[in-house]
Amino acid sequence: MAESRFFLILKEGIGQIMVQGFVQNFVPYFALRGFPLILLCGLLISKPTGAPQPARNLIPVPSSVQAGKGSLRVDSSFSVALAGYTEPRLELGVERFLQQLASQTSIPLNLKPAQSGRATLVIRTDHASREIQEVGEDESYSLEVIAAGAKLTAPTPLGTLHGLQTFLQLVDVSSDGFAAPEVTIQDRPRFPWRGLMIDSARHFTPLDVIRRNLDGMEALKMDVFHWHLSDNQGFRVESKRFPKLQERGSDGLYYTQDEVRDVIAYAHDRGIRVVPEFDMPGHSTSWFVGYPELASAPGPYETERRWGVFDPAMDPTKEGTYKFLDQFIGEMATLFPDQFFHVGGDEVNGKQWDANKEIQEFMRAHGIPNNRTLQAYFNKRLQAIVEKHGKSMIGWDEILDPTLPKDITIQSWRGQASLAAAAREGYRGILSNGYYLDLGWPASRHYAMDPLSGGAANLSPEEQKRILGGESCMWAEYVDAENIDSRIWPRNAAIAERLWSPADIRDPASMYTRLDFIATRLEWLGLTHRTSYWRMLHRIAGVTTPEEFAALDTLTQQLEPVKDYTRERTAPAEPTSLTPMNRVVDAVPLESAAARRFAELVDQFIGTSCLDADARARLRAQFTAWRDNDPRLQPLAERSFLVREVAERSQDLSALGTMGLAALDAIAKRQPAPVSWKTQQLAAIEQLKKQKAQLLLLPVPAVEKLVEAAAGGTCMAVK
Amino acid sequence: MAESRFFLILKEGIGQIMVQGFVQNFVPYFALRGFPLILLCGLLISKPTGAPQPARNLIPVPSSVQAGKGSLRVDSSFSVALAGYTEPRLELGVERFLQQLASQTSIPLNLKPAQSGRATLVIRTDHASREIQEVGEDESYSLEVIAAGAKLTAPTPLGTLHGLQTFLQLVDVSSDGFAAPEVTIQDRPRFPWRGLMIDSARHFTPLDVIRRNLDGMEALKMDVFHWHLSDNQGFRVESKRFPKLQERGSDGLYYTQDEVRDVIAYAHDRGIRVVPEFDMPGHSTSWFVGYPELASAPGPYETERRWGVFDPAMDPTKEGTYKFLDQFIGEMATLFPDQFFHVGGDEVNGKQWDANKEIQEFMRAHGIPNNRTLQAYFNKRLQAIVEKHGKSMIGWDEILDPTLPKDITIQSWRGQASLAAAAREGYRGILSNGYYLDLGWPASRHYAMDPLSGGAANLSPEEQKRILGGESCMWAEYVDAENIDSRIWPRNAAIAERLWSPADIRDPASMYTRLDFIATRLEWLGLTHRTSYWRMLHRIAGVTTPEEFAALDTLTQQLEPVKDYTRERTAPAEPTSLTPMNRVVDAVPLESAAARRFAELVDQFIGTSCLDADARARLRAQFTAWRDNDPRLQPLAERSFLVREVAERSQDLSALGTMGLAALDAIAKRQPAPVSWKTQQLAAIEQLKKQKAQLLLLPVPAVEKLVEAAAGGTCMAVK
Repeated sequence: MAESRFFLILKEGIGQIMVQGFVQNFVPYFALRGFPLILLCGLLISKPTGAPQPARNLIPVPSSVQAGKGSLRVDSSFSVALAGYTEPRLELGVERFLQQLASQTSIPLNLKPAQSGRATLVIRTDHASREIQEVGEDESYSLEVIAAGAKLTAPTPLGTLHGLQTFLQLVDVSSDGFAAPEVTIQDRPRFPWRGLMIDSARHFTPLDVIRRNLDGMEALKMDVFHWHLSDNQGFRVESKRFPKLQERGSDGLYYTQDEVRDVIAYAHDRGIRVVPEFDMPGHSTSWFVGYPELASAPGPYETERRWGVFDPAMDPTKEGTYKFLDQFIGEMATLFPDQFFHVGGDEVNGKQWDANKEIQEFMRAHGIPNNRTLQAYFNKRLQAIVEKHGKSMIGWDEILDPTLPKDITIQSWRGQASLAAAAREGYRGILSNGYYLDLGWPASRHYAMDPLSGGAANLSPEEQKRILGGESCMWAEYVDAENIDSRIWPRNAAIAERLWSPADIRDPASMYTRLDFIATRLEWLGLTHRTSYWRMLHRIAGVTTPEEFAALDTLTQQLEPVKDYTRERTAPAEPTSLTPMNRVVDAVPLESAAARRFAELVDQFIGTSCLDADARARLRAQFTAWRDNDPRLQPLAERSFLVREVAERSQDLSALGTMGLAALDAIAKRQPAPVSWKTQQLAAIEQLKKQKAQLLLLPVPAVEKLVEAAAGGTCMAVK
Repeated sequence: MAESRFFLILKEGIGQIMVQGFVQNFVPYFALRGFPLILLCGLLISKPTGAPQPARNLIPVPSSVQAGKGSLRVDSSFSVALAGYTEPRLELGVERFLQQLASQTSIPLNLKPAQSGRATLVIRTDHASREIQEVGEDESYSLEVIAAGAKLTAPTPLGTLHGLQTFLQLVDVSSDGFAAPEVTIQDRPRFPWRGLMIDSARHFTPLDVIRRNLDGMEALKMDVFHWHLSDNQGFRVESKRFPKLQERGSDGLYYTQDEVRDVIAYAHDRGIRVVPEFDMPGHSTSWFVGYPELASAPGPYETERRWGVFDPAMDPTKEGTYKFLDQFIGEMATLFPDQFFHVGGDEVNGKQWDANKEIQEFMRAHGIPNNRTLQAYFNKRLQAIVEKHGKSMIGWDEILDPTLPKDITIQSWRGQASLAAAAREGYRGILSNGYYLDLGWPASRHYAMDPLSGGAANLSPEEQKRILGGESCMWAEYVDAENIDSRIWPRNAAIAERLWSPADIRDPASMYTRLDFIATRLEWLGLTHRTSYWRMLHRIAGVTTPEEFAALDTLTQQLEPVKDYTRERTAPAEPTSLTPMNRVVDAVPLESAAARRFAELVDQFIGTSCLDADARARLRAQFTAWRDNDPRLQPLAERSFLVREVAERSQDLSALGTMGLAALDAIAKRQPAPVSWKTQQLAAIEQLKKQKAQLLLLPVPAVEKLVEAAAGGTCMAVK
């Protein structure tokens, strides 16, 4: 450190007295210099000024942020030095950091590390992390930025990698070139397990999609990639021991072992563990295509094309099953270095077990009263195999049984209460309930879900420690390589913040501001959550005029896919893994930013007793555009079957525009609209709330508020 | 053919009589069936109806297009069979075709070839093309699409590849699923040499950029990738014989020989020849960094960072120069299989020759009167070396000298007259004058430039044949990996059409319609000409609100970079190869589609004597938006130095909006505005026409027309 330019400049300024404070962190320095300290805590979104504001850019919000006044200029002389402990991963990490910085500023940078004494950013890592990354390693870091330079210190490379991401988020265009604001950050994660699960079984996830999502995870400081690799619809990993698994169960879409190793190395470079999941004893039809002898009913089997819960399950009573699993898990335990091995364990409907006489006999002979207990028996045998191969078993809620050893970990899709119950019994767990990205919830709803709230709020500190964190889940019934990014991002960033940042960071407005920011940055990394929308919309429209295309966009910006599990129930025909995903419902984001902003505008207008003239004008413009949009869209609907599917929603949007204008007119008169009008409008609104073409018209509730306001309430009290 | 489903269905319909016609083309079939034949010739842009319309989708326009009434549905059963001659390139081509078709429809397709009898598209290729693709091979094809299937026939794989691209362009969304319209196409190129030159010397072009541009070229049926590989600013190919060329002359940014071979194979798969250019004896500073002994003045040399014409030139009087070139060209002649070897030859300013006493003495001794003759001497020696290594020499205008053998080919950057002169003397040539993409011309201007018009119009048929075609040129002073696509595309598609389609295909309105279409499709292929604009605009804005960002977009949509060579002259500081290219001038397209549409709208309005109420309303909305835009942009200009650079242009746009509204008001009164008003407005307009921040405000001339109209003319004649 003594050799850094940063340090020397500091020394000039304040002398020997600061050395100790500098070593620890920069707070005393700024304090002594009388800099105004602003404790941001991520909640204060100040109006942007000339210097970039850290609070608008940081997601997840760090544990502690103290902003200074000035900024560190980033120009072509920018350089990085690695002091202290180093390793190839850090060197690669710095090179990637510099490439990314060059890309986000378009300033040519020298990618080679600098001598410490001359570097703009000096990194000091204390020691190595574990060779195989473990849960709960020290991921903390400190980042100090002043006008003269920056310093990043961390106990391990994991913290260093996180700190580099924070620095990248800080750098933005300013009134005077690209710059990072002066800031002192102390940061560490709230939970050690911050995961994203991708289901590569229902639709295969190409490797470039995996890689760019790992890049996104790194940007959000997530540290576990949970890879759902087998399910009824596909077995996605090459087994050399049992090659018929991938040969018969994957339609040729699987990862070779070399590819798996590449993904693991790619993740490791980014401080991300890879936890493989092989779902058993249910969700396993694809195994049985090549190995029907594992199943509880005779074959032959075919890879499943439909969605849902199906009957096939492994036979837990045959020794052959365990012999197979011993060899298979042995092979996979070598391929996947992580300490955890996910065995799935969810949604066994038991029908094959019920129908199999030998299984029924086995249960009687062994005093196994029901299928739940039979699955517990299977899991105990499985756990022994997993442990034999040096791994710790993790599975979904259903694997929880008091007869299993405390070493297992529960991933809860059922909820906080289920997770808390496990913790009370001494089991570790992670939360996924509330984090299912495929259900189409708004980011704010995921954001409000805390692993330690609800049913887990009353746990003792000891029990709380067993809750390791959480995982967002991207189940892949309705995602493919084209739209998967838009189903994960940017909403996943809200979950990443929930799992990293202090519990009291929970203002949705702040989160959404920062979500807008990171959504742009993630596209720069190669994610396609925004661009895929345009691509798909162009396909839907076909050859068209700019005006027609704009009309389609105006409509689809206000649409979202139906939520939760409604998509199955409302499908025009039974969807399968071969159904094209080229419809509007596949293209529009799961959360419409435009609709959110419209709802905010309505709230703002009503919040001023409908007096805000600017808001009124904007609402009127919006409603007028909606009212007039449908005639412009209809020619396109005649030409494209994919547009025709949303033609009714287009009429609905026009109707909503007309209704909104009527409400504004009534409000302008300051005379409550007649009850009959209100009744009529609300009845129409109930109709508009219904899904059509599996799409919801998002602005309906906000317009409902305006109709209510037009019929009475605070807006009418003002004359 | 007899085994194809297509054929069988045809036979059912019309019997034996049609077999011969079918073999040749489908015209008789449609004629006999009484189908209404529409000779489209690419000029007729009919209003879109339920069935996709070929004329809107085909670029370049084929030699002959006859449209039917129905369409061929493209669904998951779509398949392709290769009949007749086949080879790995065709099999790969079909697989890429199916992947692309699957991608553009999002319909899962079986990528394996089908048996001919069952295929939707049956391909019959007659025979192989030359192992090393040559100029003037048969690239023709016939494509017949009816509701029951399609047939593509071609003499060689080159035609087959072109036909597959035509089919991809035909497939679009329809009222009844994805479909290709019934059509009969006979197609062949007008010119055999249809090239794109990319300058990888001034800014290095990463391999993925090369590849995606080759994809774009394939889509437009271009067949020559001219790779400008050395210049003052960089030497970009690995030489094993002279490794200091790339080691000292490239800043580490060069292509290994393996990478070059990969690019050549990639191009070959797409029917594209790769012609390497090593520019000499000038434009060669980068050679001299490692090998100063080649130069005409003593070193040491450094790779040039600036733009322009510089003094360093090879010494044409030393035998060592030719010994070096013999070995170097020998090595490169093996690496690059194409018959043509480009030696550059342009812009030798002769200063080093003039200043070198030994060169002057050599000239006296050999009776060489001037530098032009000295360069001819160099070129004769060079041509002998190129020929010795089995290649045909091509170079820029300056290599033309009557003492050189007729085997050389001239690439004309000077113009059609220069090209015609060469052709009259018996030399072959290609046109690049008029096709310089970096000059920022509108597509229509490139489109109007015909290799056989202007100075070449009076050539004899024999002489005309010597004009092989043309090449667009992407000189790279102001392009990098991020914005190069937006400098090449979509305008390059207009040049591709000029070089492929019949000479009478020249309606700019039709071209622009199809340019809009292909611009979308090219993005689907991975080109980034549109997305890079958004990426760069987000960088320019930094953290921002959607409203501010929209204000920036509203402004920048009406801006274009200065044209021709004005950029050098207007630069705020001398630009170099290290200057960041992150300014608005780097981000906005070289041709603004929004500004073009605005100008069309103004013409349409004035064309109706200013009576078109819809056009008037749209103009008023546009002007109002411009007038009100500046206040919304200014906060961003305070925060971002990159936005601040265009703050004045924003005020200009507001002024233009105000002026446009005043003109509309005057027109509405149907009373000519006072002369003083007109004078004042026109003076203001002259100011607005000037560049600021190296940007032109595109709508100014159209507003000028409105001001003129407001002050008199046809619009005032109407009451």
